[in-house]
Amino acid sequence: MMKLHCDNIEIATGIGPDIVNITPQLGAIVRQAGVLNGSLQATVIGSTGSLTTIEFEPGVVEDLKKAISRLASPDAVYEHEKAWHDGNGHSHVQAALLGPSIVVPIRSGSLALGTWQQVVTINHDNRPRRRRIEITIIGHDL
Amino acid sequence: MMKLHCDNIEIATGIGPDIVNITPQLGAIVRQAGVLNGSLQATVIGSTGSLTTIEFEPGVVEDLKKAISRLASPDAVYEHEKAWHDGNGHSHVQAALLGPSIVVPIRSGSLALGTWQQVVTINHDNRPRRRRIEITIIGHDL
Amino acid sequence: MMKLHCDNIEIATGIGPDIVNITPQLGAIVRQAGVLNGSLQATVIGSTGSLTTIEFEPGVVEDLKKAISRLASPDAVYEHEKAWHDGNGHSHVQAALLGPSIVVPIRSGSLALGTWQQVVTINHDNRPRRRRIEITIIGHDL
Repeated sequence: MMKLHCDNIEIATGIGPDIVNITPQLGAIVRQAGVLNGSLQATVIGSTGSLTTIEFEPGVVEDLKKAISRLASPDAVYEHEKAWHDGNGHSHVQAALLGPSIVVPIRSGSLALGTWQQVVTINHDNRPRRRRIEITIIGHDL
Repeated sequence: MMKLHCDNIEIATGIGPDIVNITPQLGAIVRQAGVLNGSLQATVIGSTGSLTTIEFEPGVVEDLKKAISRLASPDAVYEHEKAWHDGNGHSHVQAALLGPSIVVPIRSGSLALGTWQQVVTINHDNRPRRRRIEITIIGHDL
Repeated sequence: MMKLHCDNIEIATGIGPDIVNITPQLGAIVRQAGVLNGSLQATVIGSTGSLTTIEFEPGVVEDLKKAISRLASPDAVYEHEKAWHDGNGHSHVQAALLGPSIVVPIRSGSLALGTWQQVVTINHDNRPRRRRIEITIIGHDL
């Protein structure tokens, strides 16, 4: 039987770019959903967050933060700033370039990821944010 | 009951990078689909277009255009140009880096987005284009 | 009737950035799935691979490789390198920025793509890799 399961998680994140591993939380939702094979779709709510996968180890996390800051530096001049004065013009640009959504396959009841591959959410905002991530799982039930 | 609904929209876009808010059109399709909870998957057809989310206000739009042009400048030298002479080598590179597809959750019959978050399509081509975006909605019906 | 079909492909890729057209393989799986309208979700397994669409011609392939190397140069200094000494710090950063997943619509029994648009997997690693791509198809059957 096909089954659809909707859920969400809320993740505390620090000043951007902050990169948080959400694989354990996603894995727990997959188990709860009771899906054998299918896919998990995740989208971060808000225009200064993004989702991707990385090897979640301190070196890669640091390297990715630097690369993100090169894409849109907090020190550059932003039109958004001229209108809103909230100091996060770079956050909006970074998040748009990385994108808010991701699809992760579910196989044999678990997320199918590489040995060193984890799903992360990135807060690009210039202040700590509580990030909500909406999750839609579709698949055959166990 | 689970339901699947396929549709598409066509959007007029200007010379790239041009960023167009398609949230109203997507919202109308969600209402028409009659889905309570599930997800909307959207993909732009063509190799010089992309999809993402932003806060759609003039400042961010301008900032994102500049960042996209830094990723692949129209003034750089492109191998694509040497073979095809259509002046859009940068368009292909920009679109590939941003990606053609996005997933947006549907909750309580509406797109789940942040207060300031809109779905946009970006035309990266060096001429105005009519962009077709294919939409697949899966969810439980109302 | 709605139908869900899971499958995977394995693709030999060269030293990164290497860009391989996987559209024929995806098309074959769509035909096998027997789905009329719906979508194909694909995710590359591993933290140094990515998926996107391009016009797969030698010029664009070359231009995209250059742009990817600008995002994170193999010649830069990486924290990942200091800990692991495997020379692929840039690979992790590039893959995270491009993203591991994509959604392609299925219409009238075939992938809906632009005339010049193909789905590609990119190996960002600094050695040849066999890449597994997991595919989930959901749609109405033929």
